[in-house]
Amino acid sequence: MYLLYYYPGNANLAPHILLEEIGAEYKLVLVDRSQNQQKSPEYLKLNPNGRIPVLVDGGLVLYEAAAICLHLADRHPAAALAPALGSDARAEFYKWLIYLTNTVQAELLLYFYPERMADAAAAAQIKAHAESRIGEMLDQIEAKLAADAGPFLLGAQYSAADAYLLMLCRWTRGMHHPARTRPQLGRFLDMMMARPATQGAFAGEGIDAPFY
Amino acid sequence: MYLLYYYPGNANLAPHILLEEIGAEYKLVLVDRSQNQQKSPEYLKLNPNGRIPVLVDGGLVLYEAAAICLHLADRHPAAALAPALGSDARAEFYKWLIYLTNTVQAELLLYFYPERMADAAAAAQIKAHAESRIGEMLDQIEAKLAADAGPFLLGAQYSAADAYLLMLCRWTRGMHHPARTRPQLGRFLDMMMARPATQGAFAGEGIDAPFY
Repeated sequence: MYLLYYYPGNANLAPHILLEEIGAEYKLVLVDRSQNQQKSPEYLKLNPNGRIPVLVDGGLVLYEAAAICLHLADRHPAAALAPALGSDARAEFYKWLIYLTNTVQAELLLYFYPERMADAAAAAQIKAHAESRIGEMLDQIEAKLAADAGPFLLGAQYSAADAYLLMLCRWTRGMHHPARTRPQLGRFLDMMMARPATQGAFAGEGIDAPFY
Repeated sequence: MYLLYYYPGNANLAPHILLEEIGAEYKLVLVDRSQNQQKSPEYLKLNPNGRIPVLVDGGLVLYEAAAICLHLADRHPAAALAPALGSDARAEFYKWLIYLTNTVQAELLLYFYPERMADAAAAAQIKAHAESRIGEMLDQIEAKLAADAGPFLLGAQYSAADAYLLMLCRWTRGMHHPARTRPQLGRFLDMMMARPATQGAFAGEGIDAPFY
């Protein structure tokens, strides 16, 4: 039985989708961000960074959403959420997941929380620049999906990186040019949303439309 | 025979150290940043992000330094650069590598290139804030190394995450409170630098002292 500490729509969404894809037994534990519970002494014992999510797997207390995705994929090889160890496809899988977390997700944090870094005038510049950069990143992913056979990041094979991409695309839904407005990404998001596992995770977190 | 596209001290350093740890056959290919070669049409065919490094492994062209580290670890299990698939230790390894790339490395990019995001006044704020945040991250890693038996991030076992940490710590050497000034991290860096593989990579890139 896994425990997934979550807040609706936060970075727990990708691991949550994977738990549904696997058909694993798990319980959700709400970390109430509206009460700043992610900075409570109890939660900081689980994740000293005060970020959501955390996965508890027996004696293992794991944070970093991308690491949780990798771990779940490894623990459940029958679910085929990642290519075989040592293969070229596995390397491509790592590349996408790492790029999504260290580049796209990192830029999204600048978009959502620019005031953490600077005063109001500077924060406005940071936010605008981040939105522009995220647009360029989405354009590049769009071009990749258009160039390859698809329909997933790794081609014909669904992987944990697709759940991660869906989660990050969802976070762009309030931007001037959100991910869904691009033809390939729009199709990708519709396809991902049609999967029962995705629907199960969204319902489990109580996420309402618009989904992305 | 691997090809590693590099510029001295850039994000290629961690993969380079691992190639030395493995004892793999490889050739270095210089990407001359002083001539902006990482944005040349030829290089953009290898990595559309225009970032260094790229690893060529037969027909595989791989970017994202952390992904290259994972791939090298997987391709060479005898080198024991990552714990066994599906183990708790493997999950911890993912956690550290992901955290280093999506949080510490991402913040270092803000420190080094704040002018990409905003005007001069805002950039000065971004840089100062990034230095402060990186200090907090290093303090947290210091506390982790002090609390556990060490001497590596995963305890007794050297892993690819240690090479990544060394690389990022090196990038703090010009800060007011660089990584080396913390007792545990200072000891860690000295220990890492004593490894022949580290020395081989530094020499191969022509990196001069101070190393970190």
